[in-house]
Amino acid sequence: METKILLPETELPEAWFNIIPRLPKPPAPPLDPRSGEPIKPEDLLTIFPRALVEQEMSPEPWIEIPEEVKKVYRLWRPTPLRRAHNLEKALKTPARIYYKDESVSPPGSHKPNTAVAQAYYNKKEGIRRLATETGAGQWGSALAFACKIFNLECTVYMVKVSFEQKPFRKSLMHIWGAEVFPSPSERTAAGRRILAENPKTRGSLGIAISEAVEDAATHEDTNYALGSVLNHVLLHQTIIGLETQKQLEQIEERPDILIGCVGGGSNFAGFTFPFIGEILEGRLSAEVIAVEPTSCPTLTKGVYRYDFGDTAGLTPLLLMHTLGHTFEPPGIHAGGLRYHGDAPLICQLVKEGVIKPRAYPQNPCFEAAVLFAQTEGIIPAPETSHAIRAVIDEAIKCRETGEEKTIVFCFSGHGHFDLAAYDAFLEGKLEDYEYPEEKIREALEKLPKFPTGL
Amino acid sequence: METKILLPETELPEAWFNIIPRLPKPPAPPLDPRSGEPIKPEDLLTIFPRALVEQEMSPEPWIEIPEEVKKVYRLWRPTPLRRAHNLEKALKTPARIYYKDESVSPPGSHKPNTAVAQAYYNKKEGIRRLATETGAGQWGSALAFACKIFNLECTVYMVKVSFEQKPFRKSLMHIWGAEVFPSPSERTAAGRRILAENPKTRGSLGIAISEAVEDAATHEDTNYALGSVLNHVLLHQTIIGLETQKQLEQIEERPDILIGCVGGGSNFAGFTFPFIGEILEGRLSAEVIAVEPTSCPTLTKGVYRYDFGDTAGLTPLLLMHTLGHTFEPPGIHAGGLRYHGDAPLICQLVKEGVIKPRAYPQNPCFEAAVLFAQTEGIIPAPETSHAIRAVIDEAIKCRETGEEKTIVFCFSGHGHFDLAAYDAFLEGKLEDYEYPEEKIREALEKLPKFPTGL
Repeated sequence: METKILLPETELPEAWFNIIPRLPKPPAPPLDPRSGEPIKPEDLLTIFPRALVEQEMSPEPWIEIPEEVKKVYRLWRPTPLRRAHNLEKALKTPARIYYKDESVSPPGSHKPNTAVAQAYYNKKEGIRRLATETGAGQWGSALAFACKIFNLECTVYMVKVSFEQKPFRKSLMHIWGAEVFPSPSERTAAGRRILAENPKTRGSLGIAISEAVEDAATHEDTNYALGSVLNHVLLHQTIIGLETQKQLEQIEERPDILIGCVGGGSNFAGFTFPFIGEILEGRLSAEVIAVEPTSCPTLTKGVYRYDFGDTAGLTPLLLMHTLGHTFEPPGIHAGGLRYHGDAPLICQLVKEGVIKPRAYPQNPCFEAAVLFAQTEGIIPAPETSHAIRAVIDEAIKCRETGEEKTIVFCFSGHGHFDLAAYDAFLEGKLEDYEYPEEKIREALEKLPKFPTGL
Repeated sequence: METKILLPETELPEAWFNIIPRLPKPPAPPLDPRSGEPIKPEDLLTIFPRALVEQEMSPEPWIEIPEEVKKVYRLWRPTPLRRAHNLEKALKTPARIYYKDESVSPPGSHKPNTAVAQAYYNKKEGIRRLATETGAGQWGSALAFACKIFNLECTVYMVKVSFEQKPFRKSLMHIWGAEVFPSPSERTAAGRRILAENPKTRGSLGIAISEAVEDAATHEDTNYALGSVLNHVLLHQTIIGLETQKQLEQIEERPDILIGCVGGGSNFAGFTFPFIGEILEGRLSAEVIAVEPTSCPTLTKGVYRYDFGDTAGLTPLLLMHTLGHTFEPPGIHAGGLRYHGDAPLICQLVKEGVIKPRAYPQNPCFEAAVLFAQTEGIIPAPETSHAIRAVIDEAIKCRETGEEKTIVFCFSGHGHFDLAAYDAFLEGKLEDYEYPEEKIREALEKLPKFPTGL
């Protein structure tokens, strides 16, 4: 029985999978907050290249992957699909557990799948520099890597709590030639305003997005790059699910349960959308579980409505599950899951009942991650540990019912730069935090009355 | 043109390659320091299991890999052989550069190839706990991982300078359930004696070996495990070279130059010995280059004679290139290369002119590592950066001569836990250090007059 299901480079998918034309109803458009009208593609060209703006709302079912992007993908792709034999044995489960290992990329996560594509299209359209935000640093390091490969400059606004907790993702960005600032910073009007209001703020993804967008909007030769949430980002990530489909086919397996963690949603969407395409067409019946932290329970406790994508209110309005764009989550170690909203395409599928959300506190997730490391060897990123917690719970259910289900999950990244969090866990110092519904209601009541879209 | 040359799991080698029966003359035996006579296998059974003692001096050309070991290997093996297209392009070299990527193992280096085998044989012979030393922490984390898989306890004596500089390799060991002590420690007589003489010592691999050997020798249920130097360790590592041979065959390549870094010599021997077998039989003509740091220039400036393997003088005498067993190298970041001696089998082949040694200071090595990271993506371990420096220099020679040589090297590990060293390099804070020949002579003159074996 194989442990690793490998695809040869010749089997690298030729096109990304676009879920938009497959959805039961078209996605709600992003709105201009001033007019309440759908934004026009031209509005986005200040900060994005034309090719990505076109992909954002493309009706095409497949979008060809440029040869230059595939060439870079081949440094680490196709990634292995691994069978978790040892974990199954430890759990005494009749379930078969597979994981798509996105940790083998140079930055150690799924993020370069879109970073490389975005750097390529920006370079092609004559852009000299990209500005971006990063939470745990996975996205920032991925973009730094991609910019270095395509010879672009790179400026990263890193959420302050991660900048301090995760010095080594900063080192990675420096090795790949990027400049990195803790956010909020004094470099932007948005950053200065937030620092003036709350000098002790630990930052958030929403604040860092405001800074990077402002940097791009105020510099002619600079564009903005987003690591999640937007349709074109999710599109590039579908290479994960497309490869997984081929790998499962190779061993004649069909998934019963698909699991991923959700922050902005990019690894989750990239992994599940090709399968959800099959589900929507009635060719597959599978549970699709999105796992988030109880400290930032967007899909499980947020409200489905229009809201800003950033904290300062610079972005268009997006229809999504949100905790309110002013939401500041506690500084849990899974920095990549600390976002007030979620990708609109994922939220729509949650709303339609195709995706089931679930939330866990961080201690049970680290417990799952340590069991995983002790059986399978690889150390999971704290974000990934949320998916593993759900996988283990589902596998234990199978043990209880005797069902031989096939569970497939996305191993979004390794935890090599998160070992301080493991130290804290092993020393019993991590606190669990359930975000109080009352505080969420309060935050949402403060929001301006945008069109609700419901 | 492929970027990764992959082997399916079914192609995992069935046996390790033993170079001993292929050598032009038999290796000089380890000697008992009291009698000057060759030590007897029984003497080693206090700290090693019988199977490994047998492998240490086995005349068999091939040693079968147990199924239980192969099962664990399959978590990450066969490892990819990668073509460094981007590095070649950056260097404008006509050379073709390939690297065998041992960084994909759970601990991130080649070390588990032997750790898994050693844990297996010890478990099989009823041992409850293994004690070991570690330099940079790569060996300690590999043994911790292997012990967890085979359900053994694990005690690691970690060279103090690395214990302090590399806190995250300690975290890895903790995640995999090992206990870790900075060496020299108060737990052993050897450690206490050295601390009394020099309370400020930063430790060395030689001192840590003394502590681990003493721990094993004084506890009935505990054995010792060594991560390098000994024949059986090098034997287990030959899986690296055996896979590389199959991969090169697959793409119809033959190596002109083989390169690896040398600390104790295990990744180097594991990678090159199967090829050296071909060279000794006249079936291959290739340069074999062993790279070490100028701050610990064992092969380039040491003397070939009998010496202890450890600092306290607890081990048998080994015939090798040595800087003297009391040598304490400066605290360079490539902790894995800070050893006063080298594997006797490698030293013999250096003496016979088959292996050419070369030494570099650390700054040019980090410079090479950053270029590698910026082109190929992966961040090399500081140890590995020494090999990369030599690879780049050889590739530049090819550019100058126009020769289309095939250069193959062992990428022994990633640098994810060495980013503080990269920070120091990027900030211009790393010092180069050439060990003065005078100091080496002094150290050697202080050695007791063992049989020289020459």
